[in-house]
Amino acid sequence: MAATTVAAEWKTLVLKALQKNRSVANARYMQIATVRPDGRPANRTVVFRGFLEDSNMVTFITDARSSKVEEIKSNPLAEICWYLPNTREQFRLSGRLSLVGQEPDAPPHMAQGRTKVWVGMSDPARAQFMWPDPGLPRTLPLEAWDGVVPPTPDSIPPDTFLLVAMEVATVDHLLLKANQRFVYARSAQADVTAAVADSSVWDKVEVNP
Amino acid sequence: MAATTVAAEWKTLVLKALQKNRSVANARYMQIATVRPDGRPANRTVVFRGFLEDSNMVTFITDARSSKVEEIKSNPLAEICWYLPNTREQFRLSGRLSLVGQEPDAPPHMAQGRTKVWVGMSDPARAQFMWPDPGLPRTLPLEAWDGVVPPTPDSIPPDTFLLVAMEVATVDHLLLKANQRFVYARSAQADVTAAVADSSVWDKVEVNP
Repeated sequence: MAATTVAAEWKTLVLKALQKNRSVANARYMQIATVRPDGRPANRTVVFRGFLEDSNMVTFITDARSSKVEEIKSNPLAEICWYLPNTREQFRLSGRLSLVGQEPDAPPHMAQGRTKVWVGMSDPARAQFMWPDPGLPRTLPLEAWDGVVPPTPDSIPPDTFLLVAMEVATVDHLLLKANQRFVYARSAQADVTAAVADSSVWDKVEVNP
Repeated sequence: MAATTVAAEWKTLVLKALQKNRSVANARYMQIATVRPDGRPANRTVVFRGFLEDSNMVTFITDARSSKVEEIKSNPLAEICWYLPNTREQFRLSGRLSLVGQEPDAPPHMAQGRTKVWVGMSDPARAQFMWPDPGLPRTLPLEAWDGVVPPTPDSIPPDTFLLVAMEVATVDHLLLKANQRFVYARSAQADVTAAVADSSVWDKVEVNP
C-alpha cells in the first residue's frame, strides 16, 4: 500500500484520545524509554504536559538531578509508549529530546513553554523540585518532605526544574478495538525548520497489527 | 543508609499490587524498553503472563515476526516500566531477556512455561499468532483477521509463538501515595544458578523519591 502524505493527523488523534480518556486519572501518564550511558535501556512514567505552543513537540518535566537527564545528554533519542485504557489504543512516539532549563540562550518559545508549565502546575508538583536529590539514599525522615513549602506559581522556577520536549520523528498508532495500526513518519518533504504543526508533512501507512 | 539483604520481597510486592489492582482491566499491561540494532530505544506495551514457575522471572509473549524479537536477539537487556493505577505505584524491572520458542534444547522449565501460557490464553489471543506478519504494510481487508480460526488450547503452539522471560537484576519501586522509593539489586551473595525465588538474595536501599 502506498504511503499517503498528511498533516500531523497523529497530533489530532492524540488530542482526541485524551479527550475520550479524560475520566481516567492516569490518562496523561506516558512511559519514556531512553538509553543509559552504558547502553542499557531505561524506562519510566512521566506526565504529558501538552504540546509545546503550536508545535508537534510533546513535553513533560523532570528534575535536573534525575538520572534521566544524564541519559538524555549522552543520547537524546527516546521512545514514548502511551497506552490509553478507555479507547484501548497505544501511541509510540519516537524522536529526539531537548532539555530546557533557564539558560539565557534557550529558544524563546521553549523558555516560554517551560514557564507556562511551571505556572500551571499544582503546589505539590512544584514542591517536588525543592526536595532532596532524587535517587540518592534517603537520610531524612518522611516528615521532611511534607515540610517543604511549595514555590508560588509566579516564582522563578528553580534550576532543578526542566522542561523536556520531544521532536517527534515517527508515530506508531495501534487501535486494539479495531485491530488497526498506522505508522506515521516525518516526510522528507517536510519543512523541518517550521515550528507550526500544519506546515509539516507526514507519510502515513497502514500496517498489520 | 546501609543496604539490607532480603529474599525477593519485590516479587511479593508485585503480586500484592496485582491483587489490589485487579479491578483495573489493564493492570497487567507493562511497557518494555529495548534497544534497536541502530542504538535507538524502543518501547511498547506487553501483557504480564506471570512469573515463570517458581522463579523470579517475569514473562510475556510475543510474535516471532515482531521487530522486538530482532532487537532482543541483538541486545537482550531491557527495562520494564509497570504503573499500577489503583495503588499509584510503579515498578521498574531491569534485566536480561530470553526468548523461548519450540527449539528442542530449550530448558525444560521454560518450555513448560511456554506451553502453560499457550493453554491458558483466550481464543482471540491465540488466533493472533496466525495473522499476517505484524508491522508489514496491510494488504488484506479487516475481515481477513476476523476469519482466522483460533488454534485450540491443546494444539502445538505455532513457530510464531514465543515466550519471553526476564531475569530481573534490579527493581526500582516507587510509591506515589507514600512518597517512598526502594531500590532492590540482586546481591553479589545470591546463588545465581538457583531457579527458586527464595534462594536468591537481594540488597534493598531506600532512596529519595
